[in-house]
This record gives sequence, structure tokens and C-alpha cells, in this order.
Amino acid sequence: MLLENLNWRYATKKYDPTKKVSQEAVEKIVEAARLAPTSSGLQQFRVIVISNQELKDKIVPIAWGQQIVADCSHILVFAAWDRYTEERIDQIFNYTTDQRGLPRGRFDSYTSKLKDLYLPQTAEENFNHTARQAYIGFSLSITQAAELKIDSTPMEGFSSDELDELLGLKEKGLRSVTMLPIGYRDAEGDWLEGMKKVRNPKNEFVLEYA
Amino acid sequence: MLLENLNWRYATKKYDPTKKVSQEAVEKIVEAARLAPTSSGLQQFRVIVISNQELKDKIVPIAWGQQIVADCSHILVFAAWDRYTEERIDQIFNYTTDQRGLPRGRFDSYTSKLKDLYLPQTAEENFNHTARQAYIGFSLSITQAAELKIDSTPMEGFSSDELDELLGLKEKGLRSVTMLPIGYRDAEGDWLEGMKKVRNPKNEFVLEYA
Repeated sequence: MLLENLNWRYATKKYDPTKKVSQEAVEKIVEAARLAPTSSGLQQFRVIVISNQELKDKIVPIAWGQQIVADCSHILVFAAWDRYTEERIDQIFNYTTDQRGLPRGRFDSYTSKLKDLYLPQTAEENFNHTARQAYIGFSLSITQAAELKIDSTPMEGFSSDELDELLGLKEKGLRSVTMLPIGYRDAEGDWLEGMKKVRNPKNEFVLEYA
Repeated sequence: MLLENLNWRYATKKYDPTKKVSQEAVEKIVEAARLAPTSSGLQQFRVIVISNQELKDKIVPIAWGQQIVADCSHILVFAAWDRYTEERIDQIFNYTTDQRGLPRGRFDSYTSKLKDLYLPQTAEENFNHTARQAYIGFSLSITQAAELKIDSTPMEGFSSDELDELLGLKEKGLRSVTMLPIGYRDAEGDWLEGMKKVRNPKNEFVLEYA
């Protein structure tokens, strides 16, 4: 159950480098992100899966020296569209109508509104929106890992420009947003393991209008 | 299981206004958001739960005339901090050390770094970051609703300024980011119900560096 899994997980600070996540589990963790709801169903982000040790080692200095990224089993990088384009919007809507056996153009009035909204914006404004969608998938991958009792570490602390350069994301029209190292904890070396999970109490977190 | 629940859910377009979500279920859906991981554990967002019919009706014009917000059982509004402040950062870290029985100040060098990073930024830059965190909780509430076989509709399409005004969020230092109507579908009146879920195929969604 979701709440139990959320209570189980924590941001793992130290991984056992000898323990690897199975391919089957990695696929489920990525699948949760692929099924994520996104604004207008555009799926404005992609997931990059890194298990290559040499590449993980190269990411350590990009992630401010954090050894987590070298010791984990796999790194998932969540990267969002650098901007909206007419082509990107049309592609997913054409694919959707094809898959549903509907005529192309079925959503023309809707896609016109999307284009009128996004295309006049700057690339940075576009990216502020696409990056938010990446967090929905990011959240679901964290959750899927927890369901499988796989540890993970949600990370924003890295140089996205350098990571984009290393992974060649710019050429793909993507910009990295977050990283998610996954693997199995080294409990003895992890200062956070076993610490009480702390969240604002319900009465401060929720406002009700009944 | 998460993947089954994600495959079950869809963005409900028409609710049965006679069916209400139980208080117990609403609490679980909010609890999933409360347990969400957030950047540095700051919980930069809050959830507003609206079941008052008069208030839901007032939100219809703010949500571009979408009847969903009136017909649903409850609306959850995800609202993020309008900006970082020293006080907000200290509050959560003091609460965390207190809860863990650690001395206050245990994380001083870390919180100093956070303040150096966020406080010189503009409020808008701050909000671009806090809003992203709200999406993590938003995603988990959608997921918890699905686990309980409760329908929901992830929504960005509303005037956040007008909603903030209506709910008095500005005075609380919050800005609305997304809404999540929840309830039970009116399957006959919902054009999307039963349509195939479409996502980019795996080989386009994932990039691997093995």
C-alpha cells in the first residue's frame, strides 16, 4: 500500500556498491514514470537510465562530489523538453488519435489552444512548465522503487548544464531536472538510516473548507 | 500495486455529484502528499481541501467554466510557498531536530547553504522551485486516490491569482499551483472514460547507458 511504502522509504545517503537492482525492477521503476499523468498528456519528459560504472563515476564531480551516484546501482535522470514546439505537440496528439482509432485532427481546436499558449513564451518559461511534469514521473519512480523495497535518493543537487553536456541531452532537446540514484542501502554507513521521518503535522499541512 | 493503479486511473471529465468521498479516504489522499519527499525536506507546499458546495461553485468561473470542480466531491488545491525565508527554513529544521532528539543547530552548516542559495533569488525564482515540490505531493495524491478506486482530475487550467484571492492564500504566503478534484465518475457523461490510455512507447521514453 502506498502509505506504508512512503513511510518505509527515506533519502538513502550510502549505498552498498556490490548490490545491483535487477533489470526487471528497473523496468518497473521506469514504467511508473512512463504512466505518469502529464499536462495535456504531452509527456514532456524522458528518463535516462545509467548503469555504466565509468559514466556514474564521471557524474560524481557534476553532483558536487556526492559518492552516492558512483555507489548506487543505477542512476535515473529525469530530463524535460527544453521547449514546446508545434511538432512535439502534434506528434503526441497524432499518436494518440492513431492509437485510439480516431481521425487525426480530432483534437485540433485543443492543440491550437496549447500552441497559442506555449509557443509565444520564452524557452525558459516553457521549461519551467515541462520541468514540473518531470516531477510527477520522478515522484512515481521513487514510489515504485519503495514498493519493491529498493532504496532511492531524490536529488536536485547537481550541475544540470554539465550533466546535459555529458549525456548529450541538448542535442535531444532535453534538459536534466532531477536524478534518482537507486540501489540497496549500506545501513551502517548511512547517517540518515533509521532516523525518524519528520513531516509537518497534519493540522499545519492541511487547510479545510468544509 | 502501483502500476495497476496507474493503469486504472484516468483524468475524469465528468463526476456524479451525488457520490461523496468518505472523510477517511480524503485523509489518506492528503496523507500521501504530506509524506511526499521534498527538496531538503522543507515541505514547501500545503494542501487545501474544499468540500463546501458554495465555494466549489465559485471556483467554476476561475477554472475556465469547467463543471468538474462543482460536480466533484472534494477539490484539493496544492499551493506552494510564495518564497523562501530564513524563518521558514529554520522552522522545519528546528522541528526536525526536536523530533529526532538532536540538538538544534545540528544542521546549521546545511541550512546556511540553503539560505545562501535561495534568499538572494527573486520571489519568482523561489516559487519556480517550491512549485516543483508541490507536483511531488500532487502526484502521490493522484496515486493514493487511484489505490482507493477514487477518481481524480489533475488540473492546471485555472487562474491561480483569482483562486489565491478567493481562498486568502496570499496572506498565508502561499500560491496555488495545481488542483485535484476527486470523486466518482459519471461514466455515461464522460467522453474519456473507457478510452485507451496512450503513452509514448518505452523505446522512445527511455534512453539507456548500460
